[in-house]
Amino acid sequence: MSDERYDRGLATLRALHGPDGPRVLLDLGAVAPDLARFAIEGIGDLYGDTTLDPKTRELATVAALTALGTAPSQLRGHIAGALDTGATRAEVVAVITQMYAYAGFPAAQNGIELAADVFRERGERGS
Amino acid sequence: MSDERYDRGLATLRALHGPDGPRVLLDLGAVAPDLARFAIEGIGDLYGDTTLDPKTRELATVAALTALGTAPSQLRGHIAGALDTGATRAEVVAVITQMYAYAGFPAAQNGIELAADVFRERGERGS
Amino acid sequence: MSDERYDRGLATLRALHGPDGPRVLLDLGAVAPDLARFAIEGIGDLYGDTTLDPKTRELATVAALTALGTAPSQLRGHIAGALDTGATRAEVVAVITQMYAYAGFPAAQNGIELAADVFRERGERGS
Amino acid sequence: MSDERYDRGLATLRALHGPDGPRVLLDLGAVAPDLARFAIEGIGDLYGDTTLDPKTRELATVAALTALGTAPSQLRGHIAGALDTGATRAEVVAVITQMYAYAGFPAAQNGIELAADVFRERGERGS
Amino acid sequence: MSDERYDRGLATLRALHGPDGPRVLLDLGAVAPDLARFAIEGIGDLYGDTTLDPKTRELATVAALTALGTAPSQLRGHIAGALDTGATRAEVVAVITQMYAYAGFPAAQNGIELAADVFRERGERGS
Amino acid sequence: MSDERYDRGLATLRALHGPDGPRVLLDLGAVAPDLARFAIEGIGDLYGDTTLDPKTRELATVAALTALGTAPSQLRGHIAGALDTGATRAEVVAVITQMYAYAGFPAAQNGIELAADVFRERGERGS
Repeated sequence: MSDERYDRGLATLRALHGPDGPRVLLDLGAVAPDLARFAIEGIGDLYGDTTLDPKTRELATVAALTALGTAPSQLRGHIAGALDTGATRAEVVAVITQMYAYAGFPAAQNGIELAADVFRERGERGS
Repeated sequence: MSDERYDRGLATLRALHGPDGPRVLLDLGAVAPDLARFAIEGIGDLYGDTTLDPKTRELATVAALTALGTAPSQLRGHIAGALDTGATRAEVVAVITQMYAYAGFPAAQNGIELAADVFRERGERGS
Repeated sequence: MSDERYDRGLATLRALHGPDGPRVLLDLGAVAPDLARFAIEGIGDLYGDTTLDPKTRELATVAALTALGTAPSQLRGHIAGALDTGATRAEVVAVITQMYAYAGFPAAQNGIELAADVFRERGERGS
Repeated sequence: MSDERYDRGLATLRALHGPDGPRVLLDLGAVAPDLARFAIEGIGDLYGDTTLDPKTRELATVAALTALGTAPSQLRGHIAGALDTGATRAEVVAVITQMYAYAGFPAAQNGIELAADVFRERGERGS
Repeated sequence: MSDERYDRGLATLRALHGPDGPRVLLDLGAVAPDLARFAIEGIGDLYGDTTLDPKTRELATVAALTALGTAPSQLRGHIAGALDTGATRAEVVAVITQMYAYAGFPAAQNGIELAADVFRERGERGS
Repeated sequence: MSDERYDRGLATLRALHGPDGPRVLLDLGAVAPDLARFAIEGIGDLYGDTTLDPKTRELATVAALTALGTAPSQLRGHIAGALDTGATRAEVVAVITQMYAYAGFPAAQNGIELAADVFRERGERGS
């Protein structure tokens, strides 16, 4: 009954991150199929709501994951997601920098190091 | 030497939250003058950078404080700040809702309850 | 399309916590309808999976919310949920006590204080 | 005076995890002897209480460490502990999956990745 | 067998916080006797080690609980403990203020508000 | 206008950690110049206040970062900072050990492992 939600989630992941977008969650599904399905459906649900534009969603998620500090690989993914939905590198840096005030310097510094990795992988001037 | 930064911070607080904007931090200064000064200067520093528009800054902060779940009074302040810088109630609700995916339902639910309080204080249809 | 998941979630909440079980989430829905729907559907999804019996699910949730320390009202709800699905008071106390080792004494102490409240509301010897 | 508690803790570690069970804590003791002793004694205290069966204790600990997200090596140890005290792989996956609802998808995803590692080390079909 | 440790813990609590020092933990013991005993014994263990003087122990604990932000009543207790073991109000304020850099302004602000409460209860100029 | 604060921060970093003290933050500045400047200025501000001696500041920071558990590289830096400002290895171990009581055994164990690394790098008997 939930195939529609699942397919919408897969489509959202491809639209945001390219054809390989769903790969991490599909890999997860080999061990934890329910969790992978909940995550894919959840992404479809959240991005199906257009109250926030995708770039603002991604920047807010970058802020939250920087502040939490417990999910570096997911933070990398959402830094990439912010760039892929139109944020500039300077905007990503600014939102992570701001987190020093709400979660301390180490949280912000660790976030910037992940951003620097993502930037480096995309090349000196690429998006 | 840092009077300029301090005054800029006070001006930012008044611009964002009205003439009473700096009150909480000035009260804090009666017990912890250094902390109050660092906070006021920091706000001036962050908002003096226009890479992000104030509304996006506030929404990102709402996301982070919802995810952390340890600063309810500051979260209320930034929910108000988001509304004061142009966010709609629906955008505030959407950014808090999205946090269920990154910090769990209780974090999102607690954030919505604070938002409901702020909305109620501002009247049924006011901003 | 997701009425089935939503209805299953409502039924789960009633089965676990009595006719008033869904009330908190329905109230939440007045402000954040999407979040309430995601939460109700999520409960149906999780409890629809019978790999874990409901009592073990509730005790594991009590452990996690005690350790996190950021969701006291939800922790109260799941302490009640553990009792409602067959846990004894001693088992609830033991799972919270154990959290001192993984999240420190203050987290465990705060959890016990919430458990004591729930126990008191249910009467000296009731479940 | 506390040799009895210490010895009971060592015995508990061996009963749960085999002859090498105490090794990590004994190694820790080379640098921090008090911490190692407190930990070993604490394990004896907690597991000496039979209010909860060892499997439920381990699953509750897996839930808490998944939600906290700050102790990956200890989470691996307790995933192994859950399997060693009779939990199935499906039960471990279910308790970690459930944490998406209380601590977000990244916490659950990171927990599943650690579980997948433990499962892999134990072989395709071993416990 | 552990009466000696328990009695040492009670004596430590009385030495640090006066005759009523153990009360909170004894109250806890009515609901969770094991947790209360572990906490009292743990306090005896930690304070029986004189590597750190009691004031430094208390200031370090104030720092940690300020940063965590999840244990306000325990933070109040350790602010009082710092004053009772010789810290000045200015030292307490300085250690909490410093936490803005490691855990953000809201954590530090919330810590200062608790310190202000403790100071007020002890009178304008008392320790 | 803030060159004075910035220069004071650089001088503090050199005084605490030797000529290479500012390197990590200067590297950070290549990607996030504002964050690096805020951090350097903040260090100058905090250490310019002599209410706490530098050793107590560092030990309190070690306590907080151990409890948070999200900033291992910064915790290593402050373990080194504690040794560089006069703390003994035993004092560093004691303050981390104490954190088991406030943030659980895994947090303390992870902190000790980082301390062991720092000690090892400095040689068997060096400071």
